[in-house]
Amino acid sequence: MAKQARAIQTRRMILEAAGAVFDEFGYESATIAEILARAGVTKGALYFHFASKEELARGVLGEALTTEGVLPQESRLQEWVDIGMVLAHRLPAEPLLSASIRLSADRKARDLFGTSWEGWIDFIAAQLAAAKDQGELLPHVDVRQGAKLFVGAWTGIEIVSTALEDGETLESKIAGLYDYFLPAIAVPGALRGLDTAPDRGARVWESYQAQHAGEATEGEAGGER
Amino acid sequence: MAKQARAIQTRRMILEAAGAVFDEFGYESATIAEILARAGVTKGALYFHFASKEELARGVLGEALTTEGVLPQESRLQEWVDIGMVLAHRLPAEPLLSASIRLSADRKARDLFGTSWEGWIDFIAAQLAAAKDQGELLPHVDVRQGAKLFVGAWTGIEIVSTALEDGETLESKIAGLYDYFLPAIAVPGALRGLDTAPDRGARVWESYQAQHAGEATEGEAGGER
Repeated sequence: MAKQARAIQTRRMILEAAGAVFDEFGYESATIAEILARAGVTKGALYFHFASKEELARGVLGEALTTEGVLPQESRLQEWVDIGMVLAHRLPAEPLLSASIRLSADRKARDLFGTSWEGWIDFIAAQLAAAKDQGELLPHVDVRQGAKLFVGAWTGIEIVSTALEDGETLESKIAGLYDYFLPAIAVPGALRGLDTAPDRGARVWESYQAQHAGEATEGEAGGER
Repeated sequence: MAKQARAIQTRRMILEAAGAVFDEFGYESATIAEILARAGVTKGALYFHFASKEELARGVLGEALTTEGVLPQESRLQEWVDIGMVLAHRLPAEPLLSASIRLSADRKARDLFGTSWEGWIDFIAAQLAAAKDQGELLPHVDVRQGAKLFVGAWTGIEIVSTALEDGETLESKIAGLYDYFLPAIAVPGALRGLDTAPDRGARVWESYQAQHAGEATEGEAGGER
């Protein structure tokens, strides 16, 4: 069990190093040697988990569709806001996440591995459909169209953001995106209660971490009993 | 004069070929040989206009900030819609335009050449400011923030669109983007008269072409007199 936990941790370290290298150099120019150097693991350990650069890229993309840090909310629209805001909070500190956008935007890498965009669109469409079922959306809203536009817009704002040196955080921009999108889709009643402040992602992420830390401690305590 | 016109045409042919090659292969893998083959010009002609692959990329990016095809409108909001819709109409048929997005999204190419995003943001912000001066925008709207979000969203929707095989045109998606953004920024009176139909770009582009063709004919007739 401890051995398995270590293997999971090693795999994670390798993926994070691969994410950083893909993010910085792009898929073509990234080398296994550079990933090895950053991961600080042996060649044997890397090849045990990933047989090739292709498999590393697939591994990185496999981590891209994550809602870790999002907590269930009564309002499904608030949950949708939290998904985008937590990601905007996490992404600048997690090369594994930004790398998946770089790989998806790179036409050559995309032809090899596909993207996580279809998965994201399905996920966001389901989230918006749940909000609609709860009466939070205007009746004419096409949830699939909304999900497509949102995933495209979120992605583009991140990509353009990395090129602009305007001192504005990604969180602040994505908060703005929600403020632009929401009046077009939400019923006024649902709109009023929503929290789209730029620090929403950070607050939700901290609550999640605190809750998660608590659970881990409980688990350990349970083991000692 | 005829010689100069030919030189302009040759330069344009080379840029269009370069756009197609950058778009397909990315900056790194694009070769001058491939660009030459597609342009159907001599090596001498190419090097007369562009000394290197770098200069070709700069030339392609130099063509990216274009509002060709947009006609003046009484409503500056309608003009803003037309800018995005004409571009959505033109881009799938003009590799020169899509190549500039590919080059800007490629971190290595971007480090070498910069992007046209800052220019686009300035331009859209000025357009929205003019709409605001005419009383078309809600008073709280921050035109610069709106321009940044719009340029990011437009770009991302184009990038994601090329990866999705959903049979939906870019024009239809960008029309959807305007329908999402407009209620957040426009006063209800301005909103009602706007044309954001998916074929808006095609119609404006055709009017522009017809007008332009008329002007060229008039010019020639004038020369004969």
